[in-house]
Amino acid sequence: MTEPNGLSTLLNPKSIAVVGASDDVSRIRGKLLRTLLLAGFTGDVHPVNPSHARVQGLTAYPDLHAIGQQVDLVMVGVPAASVMAVLEDAAAIGAGAAIVHSAAEPDPQVPGGTLVADIAAFVARTGMRVLGPNAEGIWNVLDRVGANFAPVLDPAVMVQEPVDDRTDRISIVSQSGALGFALYAQGVQNGLAFRHVVTTGNEADIETLEVVDHLVAAGDSAAIVLFLEGLDRPDRFASVAASAADAGVPLIVMKVGSSEAGARAAVSHTAHLAGSDTAYDALFERYGVLRVADPEELMAVAGVLSARREPAGTNVAIITTTGGAGGWASDLCGEAGLAVPPLGDDLRAELAGVVPSYGSTANPVDVTAAAIEGAGENLVTILEAVDRDPDLHAAIVMLNMISPDRVARLEPFLRPLLERIRIPVVFHSPSPPAPENVRALGAMGAPYAGIRGAAKGIAAAVRYRRFRDRWVRPVPAPPGAGGDLAALLARHGVPTPPEAVVHDADGAVAVAQEHGYPVALKVVSPDLPHKTEAGALALGLADAGEVRAAHDRILASARAYDPAARIDGVLVQRMMPPGRELVVGMVRDPDFGPLLMLGFGGVYVDVLRDVAFAPAPVSAADAQRMVDRLRGAAILRGIRGEAGSDVDALVRLLVAVSSIIEDAGPGLRELDLNPVIVYPEGCVAVDTLAVFTPAAEEETG
Amino acid sequence: MTEPNGLSTLLNPKSIAVVGASDDVSRIRGKLLRTLLLAGFTGDVHPVNPSHARVQGLTAYPDLHAIGQQVDLVMVGVPAASVMAVLEDAAAIGAGAAIVHSAAEPDPQVPGGTLVADIAAFVARTGMRVLGPNAEGIWNVLDRVGANFAPVLDPAVMVQEPVDDRTDRISIVSQSGALGFALYAQGVQNGLAFRHVVTTGNEADIETLEVVDHLVAAGDSAAIVLFLEGLDRPDRFASVAASAADAGVPLIVMKVGSSEAGARAAVSHTAHLAGSDTAYDALFERYGVLRVADPEELMAVAGVLSARREPAGTNVAIITTTGGAGGWASDLCGEAGLAVPPLGDDLRAELAGVVPSYGSTANPVDVTAAAIEGAGENLVTILEAVDRDPDLHAAIVMLNMISPDRVARLEPFLRPLLERIRIPVVFHSPSPPAPENVRALGAMGAPYAGIRGAAKGIAAAVRYRRFRDRWVRPVPAPPGAGGDLAALLARHGVPTPPEAVVHDADGAVAVAQEHGYPVALKVVSPDLPHKTEAGALALGLADAGEVRAAHDRILASARAYDPAARIDGVLVQRMMPPGRELVVGMVRDPDFGPLLMLGFGGVYVDVLRDVAFAPAPVSAADAQRMVDRLRGAAILRGIRGEAGSDVDALVRLLVAVSSIIEDAGPGLRELDLNPVIVYPEGCVAVDTLAVFTPAAEEETG
Repeated sequence: MTEPNGLSTLLNPKSIAVVGASDDVSRIRGKLLRTLLLAGFTGDVHPVNPSHARVQGLTAYPDLHAIGQQVDLVMVGVPAASVMAVLEDAAAIGAGAAIVHSAAEPDPQVPGGTLVADIAAFVARTGMRVLGPNAEGIWNVLDRVGANFAPVLDPAVMVQEPVDDRTDRISIVSQSGALGFALYAQGVQNGLAFRHVVTTGNEADIETLEVVDHLVAAGDSAAIVLFLEGLDRPDRFASVAASAADAGVPLIVMKVGSSEAGARAAVSHTAHLAGSDTAYDALFERYGVLRVADPEELMAVAGVLSARREPAGTNVAIITTTGGAGGWASDLCGEAGLAVPPLGDDLRAELAGVVPSYGSTANPVDVTAAAIEGAGENLVTILEAVDRDPDLHAAIVMLNMISPDRVARLEPFLRPLLERIRIPVVFHSPSPPAPENVRALGAMGAPYAGIRGAAKGIAAAVRYRRFRDRWVRPVPAPPGAGGDLAALLARHGVPTPPEAVVHDADGAVAVAQEHGYPVALKVVSPDLPHKTEAGALALGLADAGEVRAAHDRILASARAYDPAARIDGVLVQRMMPPGRELVVGMVRDPDFGPLLMLGFGGVYVDVLRDVAFAPAPVSAADAQRMVDRLRGAAILRGIRGEAGSDVDALVRLLVAVSSIIEDAGPGLRELDLNPVIVYPEGCVAVDTLAVFTPAAEEETG
Repeated sequence: MTEPNGLSTLLNPKSIAVVGASDDVSRIRGKLLRTLLLAGFTGDVHPVNPSHARVQGLTAYPDLHAIGQQVDLVMVGVPAASVMAVLEDAAAIGAGAAIVHSAAEPDPQVPGGTLVADIAAFVARTGMRVLGPNAEGIWNVLDRVGANFAPVLDPAVMVQEPVDDRTDRISIVSQSGALGFALYAQGVQNGLAFRHVVTTGNEADIETLEVVDHLVAAGDSAAIVLFLEGLDRPDRFASVAASAADAGVPLIVMKVGSSEAGARAAVSHTAHLAGSDTAYDALFERYGVLRVADPEELMAVAGVLSARREPAGTNVAIITTTGGAGGWASDLCGEAGLAVPPLGDDLRAELAGVVPSYGSTANPVDVTAAAIEGAGENLVTILEAVDRDPDLHAAIVMLNMISPDRVARLEPFLRPLLERIRIPVVFHSPSPPAPENVRALGAMGAPYAGIRGAAKGIAAAVRYRRFRDRWVRPVPAPPGAGGDLAALLARHGVPTPPEAVVHDADGAVAVAQEHGYPVALKVVSPDLPHKTEAGALALGLADAGEVRAAHDRILASARAYDPAARIDGVLVQRMMPPGRELVVGMVRDPDFGPLLMLGFGGVYVDVLRDVAFAPAPVSAADAQRMVDRLRGAAILRGIRGEAGSDVDALVRLLVAVSSIIEDAGPGLRELDLNPVIVYPEGCVAVDTLAVFTPAAEEETG
């Protein structure tokens, strides 16, 4: 009956027992049964309550055994102390899954409380699957499984979405139950359609990523909205996100935590800049996950993405009945990275046929209220003309929808148009829209959004389209071979300044002559960690005489500083001419693994934190996108008539560092190339630092 | 009867004639009369229509003369061609004001069309005041003057705000009629109360700033919302904004145009960075004007500001019934520049009395739904405890308000609390709130906002409070005296590198010895603009010998380059050691006058455009805020253990440059001090450039 992981039984049971069901609908145990019935579940429902023969009009049973029929799902609403006994009964009667709605008392000794630990042990022993504890529950819209205590399924509280054959149904997966169902309710009011709402609570067993994986495989969610507070198994994120990418199901994520300073102690500069939120963002970027900041943006992005009409570019036509609102939308499009380009002459001439002379055929197109008043022919004419122009990739239609029948009057014209149109069209009303209009648009597959949301939604769709165009599932790397930093840099072809160790002044001069001046000289000794203090360092030597003198001087100085120091020779290093200074590094996130970092060097940039991260390994295309993501990327391309920097060389260096990370394996904890100087031709890593975890520490760490 | 400027008559007439009134309420001329009657105007209403004896149940007159009674306001809804004849009649019967609702056909020869020019001439001749043409009209809420054709005053379309004694009424002034009334409708749905809506259309006579000035003087608007597409008389902005600041009436502005690249040709770097949107922003900052980006932010800022409870700091307590939503709100507070600090132990102990153990007394305070279910005592206890803590400055309360009676049940507890509480409290519902709840909160003076809006609203209130604390009306500057750049720099004490003009090599050496090495030498000649090309420049001279040799060499080189060149001597300038490089400049905006600029120097920063502008003149406090507004301000304070820069010296330099701008007068078009090198002690303007407008050009320019 149940498939291996039991999630199908959880989400689509044929029979449900509600343990703890009561007639008091002001309390959770009463709400559970009431919601299930209000939602229209058509399978068998068995209330379990030892003190009542009937609950909410249904026959009640004293315990699960008394039901005497197959029970797929058990909803548990009893006090925390009784939960485990109910679960044991559920396993005994062969139930496939349970939802523990009860909240566990916190226990400072056990993260998540003893109940969480007890449930985890129970699941390991019995194989039954459990959602919760502290789970608000699930809502399988098409199969009417409203196994939750959320008030929003009550028709008295909210107009419910119709069950129809819409193919743009979205699923919500949220650890927070209240917020998961709140987002669902907002979505319904925004005209969205839903497939599943799953709220996972304290995740003793079933956790967010497994649910997402299941929904992606099920194939009937047009997009999945994730509300994340944290992940129990973040290491699984990449593979789940990759499956979603393979299936073309956009993941829209609201992740809490951007304001918590990720205060991690670290040796190097790179580690200082990274943080777990940074790791999430780097993974989101790699896997095309769309991170949203607030509910308005979430709804708009979900609306545009689920409509599956992906814009091929950033050019937006704004069609408005009020010039002021059009200008406002243009500004917000600009802020979201979209363009509102002037329309071509041919298109303008075509539009002039329906736009009055006191309107405007520029972009925004001010069609004036008069032109759309009444029937919808003019709007259809305009949208069709815009759709035919290959230089336009999306449209925003702004018209006042405060009158409840506004969209109904347009529908005979609009519906056939929206079925055949190529570009996404987002609707907005400057005055507050009557709910009927928003629902009617949703039913036509036309997203409604706020003025800011419209811009954000289209921008997200452009990003997702571009992601899909480039998406190739990364190949897992073979385990690394390790090695010391110098060998790794050499093996992977990371350019470093020419240098050689010499054993006398003649040798130093010969190397300097070969590599060119100026050079630096440094005494090589394992016993002199502080070269400057020991006088064992000389910089900016410009000719043979200076090299010769410096060679003898720093050796003498080193010997005087510590007569017992072992001296292995003198390093002669070419000093590199100035160029554009960048920083390349790697930091190993404890949850997500290695992150490659690229940033601009220099004190000013340290404050502005103009850095880009990507999970390693990176392809050349990934590396190029890291460069492009820098706010100062224009500097590398060359500004003020200066020659550009050799970005191709920088990209090769990033890929080489990525290979080093794989090659070195997990023992390489941090890596810092600072500065990497980039020239109009070539680049060079001047100073390099690696932190390796000692083998012993690696075992336990 | 009418006060000098006629705006009182426009906004509060006792008798109104509607010219062009008809029974066809699908057209504007029919809507005008219908809206006036629906809105409940209690004065005399006279429809004027030559072909009907009665219109919408009222006696109609063939023309204005036929009315035979005093008419204060004439609403004009006739076709454009007949407008001027109606206005002449209106003037003849002694009407004080008219609204021209009719839209003028555009005329490429006349900006705004001939109708605009004709009305301007009419107003100049008659003294009658005219709003429009193309004006949607006005809405004086308390006096029920709904002289407009906006559908939102129809109770069938929207629940209307009650007329009561709320003191937090907001006014809206908008050029765009449709948007002005759309914002009003959104505001009413957000529980806001309004005093006036004035939409000015094409502004042939009455324009935005005059209306704002009038409303500030009237004193019954708790805040004024401005939707600006552009200003006819931007020079008046400063004085109107200063009056609003004096009166403590916040101006909340949505200004279109941030996406239009202000492409201004200019000689210097400063001019390149400035643009008219920059000028607006600099003025907004100076006069405490709150610029908002989207309608959600606008509503939230208007709600918090009109409630007049200004937070003394940025510390916010978040009180939530769902932990997930609380985390989300924390992130959005952080983004808005607010803090959500951990609560003190005493406060936590107090809260523990009402928060269940599975909730949280940290910040956000997760009170759990159970604790607020039913009555409101617990919420009151929590808010009172928060209000008593002097380290907390505002609160956000998040509870699900999807049930229509949610706030009504809380009201007996909440209303007395909200009357005595010190801090602003913003309410939010994660699930879509029933409209009844939002209205009920508004009626208690408690703003409702989206999750992002709540943070933005409180942040704006903090900004406004800080502005009010520092506000001093700027004193107008006396006219400037002019002068050349060197004299101006010296007179106002702008530090420049030590330098002197000498006439022989001995003099050069003497100056160099006095000022210190290294020095630069430059031939002084009006005939040698390109010093490098002429070999008339020597840099980095380190001792007397080098100075002597260079002196003779550059003179010889200059004479060889142009034997006819006049030579006035040789400039000896001390070369300054490296330090933090900034740029200080001034650009004269054609509309707003001189803007002082401060930015970081260097190629990288040129791309990031980390600059701050302020209208000149600036006080020391203004200059300090310019420094603080730089994203890289931390660099000046000293990072990575480096010594900080002498910000006081930089502030003195900014004030000195500001004095130079006043002193030089309007002839000084641009000024560029680049770089200004700032040291741990002192700063110096190394290179300076000024562009003066020739006197002749100044006359005509």
